[in-house]
Amino acid sequence: MEILFLGTSAAVPSKEHSTSCIAVRSGSDIILLDCGEGSQRQLMLSPFSFMKIRAVLITHLHGDHVFGLPGLLQTMSLSNRTDPLLVCGPPGVGAALEAMMSVTEGETQYPVEVREVSGGESLDVNGLTVTVYATDHGIASVGYVVQDRQRPGKLDAAKARSMGVTSGRDMARLKNGETVNGVRPEDVIGPVIPGQRVAYSGDTRPCPTEDEAVRGADVIVHEATYMESEAAQAVDHFHTTARQAAEIARDACARHLILTHISNRYDDRSAVEAEARSVFPESYVAEDMGLFTLTSAGLRYDGVRTPENR
Amino acid sequence: MEILFLGTSAAVPSKEHSTSCIAVRSGSDIILLDCGEGSQRQLMLSPFSFMKIRAVLITHLHGDHVFGLPGLLQTMSLSNRTDPLLVCGPPGVGAALEAMMSVTEGETQYPVEVREVSGGESLDVNGLTVTVYATDHGIASVGYVVQDRQRPGKLDAAKARSMGVTSGRDMARLKNGETVNGVRPEDVIGPVIPGQRVAYSGDTRPCPTEDEAVRGADVIVHEATYMESEAAQAVDHFHTTARQAAEIARDACARHLILTHISNRYDDRSAVEAEARSVFPESYVAEDMGLFTLTSAGLRYDGVRTPENR
Repeated sequence: MEILFLGTSAAVPSKEHSTSCIAVRSGSDIILLDCGEGSQRQLMLSPFSFMKIRAVLITHLHGDHVFGLPGLLQTMSLSNRTDPLLVCGPPGVGAALEAMMSVTEGETQYPVEVREVSGGESLDVNGLTVTVYATDHGIASVGYVVQDRQRPGKLDAAKARSMGVTSGRDMARLKNGETVNGVRPEDVIGPVIPGQRVAYSGDTRPCPTEDEAVRGADVIVHEATYMESEAAQAVDHFHTTARQAAEIARDACARHLILTHISNRYDDRSAVEAEARSVFPESYVAEDMGLFTLTSAGLRYDGVRTPENR
Repeated sequence: MEILFLGTSAAVPSKEHSTSCIAVRSGSDIILLDCGEGSQRQLMLSPFSFMKIRAVLITHLHGDHVFGLPGLLQTMSLSNRTDPLLVCGPPGVGAALEAMMSVTEGETQYPVEVREVSGGESLDVNGLTVTVYATDHGIASVGYVVQDRQRPGKLDAAKARSMGVTSGRDMARLKNGETVNGVRPEDVIGPVIPGQRVAYSGDTRPCPTEDEAVRGADVIVHEATYMESEAAQAVDHFHTTARQAAEIARDACARHLILTHISNRYDDRSAVEAEARSVFPESYVAEDMGLFTLTSAGLRYDGVRTPENR
């Protein structure tokens, strides 16, 4: 899976940073996590096609997470999209979408399915599995875990040969589930490999439902609006500090942590990253247009994508 | 007056162009003309302060002209604005604003006055005069003429001296409206100089109400969604071609024409400009972040402003 950060600011954009939006891509399918103002243009500037978005998952109804939704939906329509789109969010997301779309005469020319969730649900998005968990942001809010498609187990070719299956064609038949010369697929093919999991917190205070949902995630994308020096403000505004996010990742036995939704007060985001790394070394702080690729080998940072190097 | 183009695309943004938004500045007061998605961030990237906006004038309720409004209003609020803001637009703009703001809990911490207009109205915006005219876009739509503050007439110093007023201090008293040694201000000071006028079409077909309203304007900022080769589409979609815009400017005896709201089909905007110039030589095509300065000497193009050269 690839994780592309389209907007990483908290509350308000800045010269350098757009509001919250993250694209997770598996194959050619994209799931958009939140959709702050400007997301459609960030997508146009990125290597990802906005027409390949299958679902937009909204964590909560604050402007910096949803004001990009009506423009994106209309642009898809003007670009002759016909594929259905899922819009998922906490209770109220349907009314919010309707309110925003009612402003203009823009009916979309493709079906939009709205799904309201509160936590505990599981959805299928073109083979990707999305599970929802409740978060703690002072209003209705949720987080999402996106799990990639499972992959077939690996064929132990040496073992198959030792059991008398030698030709490439017979190997392929085994992979395809056929028994060959008495050798059953389960004799030489390992267990199915579950898809990797990316969890996204939205805006939240640390909370038990999140701790539970993100356990063992390959990547936790977590808000870190504040640093520990502003921990009291983080509590007051239902946010998380960089250190707290790292503690969540550590305690969840996650493999990697990426911090986003960073307050504009932190000019130097490397300090935010350093705070998290002191607790959980596999921490990164996101930049707008920063692309990460998650493989079985781990998480690779591919740097900031620009129209020139995309 | 300065005219800064924050977004110049038609209908949908592109890599190069944001959706419709133009800032007109006189002194430190800014009037925003339309507010497409992304306008607040374009303002942050520009030399203009979004906190100095006195009024946002919406021409019509299509998404590419209004979807930036809720984010801008909320960011002003989060930035501790206390000054009132006027939001003006065709009938329905109040309900549209309420719908967009209702999505989130974001009440603004400053007063927002909403004024619905249909054409024929005249408004005062901190000394700037805005007159409204009806346009023809298939839905409720208006254009605006922004007139700068009038300036005092020029003192004819030579004449004043010949009439016996010689000291700088007495000259200043004359300018201040006092009679000095029997010399009345009107004897030596020319007539008040009316403020320059910038007209903005929004989206429209050419129409008589516009022709009338823009007569003698110093600058007409006009949509040119299409070129003449797509004239039939311009009619169908209630838009104007570059050539038609130039004819409007020529027939109105305007001084300058700036084209905006250009379809993304025209990669080369210089062709759009050339089409207009063949009819009205004082034509320009706008680029995002292009800044024009209007003085009594004429219109000066200051180029594209970037965070580096702003």
